[in-house]
Amino acid sequence: MRYARVSVGGRAVWGRVGEATVELLSGSPIGGEPDVIGTVERATAVWLPPVIPPVFYAVGLNYPRHIEHAGAAVPDRPEVGYRANNALTGHRTPIVKPRAAEGRFEAEPELVAVIGRTLRHATREEARTSVFGWTIGNDVSARTWQHQDRTFWRSKNSDTFKPMGPWIDTDVDALAQTTTLRVNGTVKASFATGDMVFDPYDYLVEMTRHLTLHPGDVLWMGAEATCRIEPGDTVDVEISGIGVLSNPVHLEGNEPA
Amino acid sequence: MRYARVSVGGRAVWGRVGEATVELLSGSPIGGEPDVIGTVERATAVWLPPVIPPVFYAVGLNYPRHIEHAGAAVPDRPEVGYRANNALTGHRTPIVKPRAAEGRFEAEPELVAVIGRTLRHATREEARTSVFGWTIGNDVSARTWQHQDRTFWRSKNSDTFKPMGPWIDTDVDALAQTTTLRVNGTVKASFATGDMVFDPYDYLVEMTRHLTLHPGDVLWMGAEATCRIEPGDTVDVEISGIGVLSNPVHLEGNEPA
Repeated sequence: MRYARVSVGGRAVWGRVGEATVELLSGSPIGGEPDVIGTVERATAVWLPPVIPPVFYAVGLNYPRHIEHAGAAVPDRPEVGYRANNALTGHRTPIVKPRAAEGRFEAEPELVAVIGRTLRHATREEARTSVFGWTIGNDVSARTWQHQDRTFWRSKNSDTFKPMGPWIDTDVDALAQTTTLRVNGTVKASFATGDMVFDPYDYLVEMTRHLTLHPGDVLWMGAEATCRIEPGDTVDVEISGIGVLSNPVHLEGNEPA
Repeated sequence: MRYARVSVGGRAVWGRVGEATVELLSGSPIGGEPDVIGTVERATAVWLPPVIPPVFYAVGLNYPRHIEHAGAAVPDRPEVGYRANNALTGHRTPIVKPRAAEGRFEAEPELVAVIGRTLRHATREEARTSVFGWTIGNDVSARTWQHQDRTFWRSKNSDTFKPMGPWIDTDVDALAQTTTLRVNGTVKASFATGDMVFDPYDYLVEMTRHLTLHPGDVLWMGAEATCRIEPGDTVDVEISGIGVLSNPVHLEGNEPA
């Protein structure tokens, strides 16, 4: 099944995504069994981030080739960081490049695990069954700020820097897929989604030794490769079996009305 | 006015705190004018974190004496980091020290600004009027993990490491107060709450150059001094004009039922 959140009359409504339509739901399917309360055409749906997480977790270096490229040491244990909800934006909405963000402005294509239930002291099997489904994230990063600042507050968490979507797929074998990054239709990177140092379940087991995960929490799994994006571009992140997250890039002040 | 969230029959309910009672409210007072729907005795109220923020911002080094003690450079601009909602806990609930957390386990007494409205590209005056009120935070930190790990995920964000409360005070002149840290009734530190390198409005102006703040977001303002805490202790953070945030410390596995 595929679940999304769409904007209907300015309100966020959960939906179940079909071939031609999105069935609108009475509530969240994460831990619930909502009723169908209407339908919109899929072609004209306004996609929102498919979930607003209570906590937004993100893995840093987690693909061997990315770690080698960064000249970093391979992590010896799963450690997690954070991103911020203000930065979330949906499929097809603009990524806004701030005028003050000089230097490299990049896309990072990531698999995202969406947690379905409360989890603490999880076994690997409990971690596996706690994942409600999978979506796609683009960890947009302003590299000059990333190097200048003590935290990732503006380099990775400025408004619109975290496109996520278009939906959550609950059936895909996520670690057996291919992640592809395209700019204006040209492939910039392609890698095995599951070629990670630590997989999502390694993270969930380690994290829940010390913290409680809650329904709707998300865990972004890192990227093997990145590429530059510029205002005027359209950047697509595809994960086979899930879908395509596509966003135009605009310069601050040049956003569409 | 003082607003809190209390647990009533297992449900989180907003309340207005009086001398002897807490008037229960029909909804959030942040951006709303809820009705009074009941009353509980203040003496028996079960205090929850007074707000669950969409984004949980926290300032690092922000008091000159703390920066000097840490041997760090004085920041030349306001930069902000993050904490995580799983770690929040209310007034009088236990801080649980994990058995695996060796070395110094410390309390950090902090002023917390609670944002009342959507804010972007704020002037200093807009920043000032955007603050709904003020509460108290204890940025509990496991120092060995803080030094070992690449992020603050378990050193500062393990479950129960972020006591906040007991309530939000909407009238206090927060920067004119005194912050006092006590363990088992003994004063461990006392400092001028407002003796900051950058005050809350400096932060809000700088942050909203790049991001949107939303109602309920919190900004923890850092501490001038810290002190060790151990299982069996009770740690109080008092900010004059706001109140006292008090929490017992338990060793993992020895929590009360």
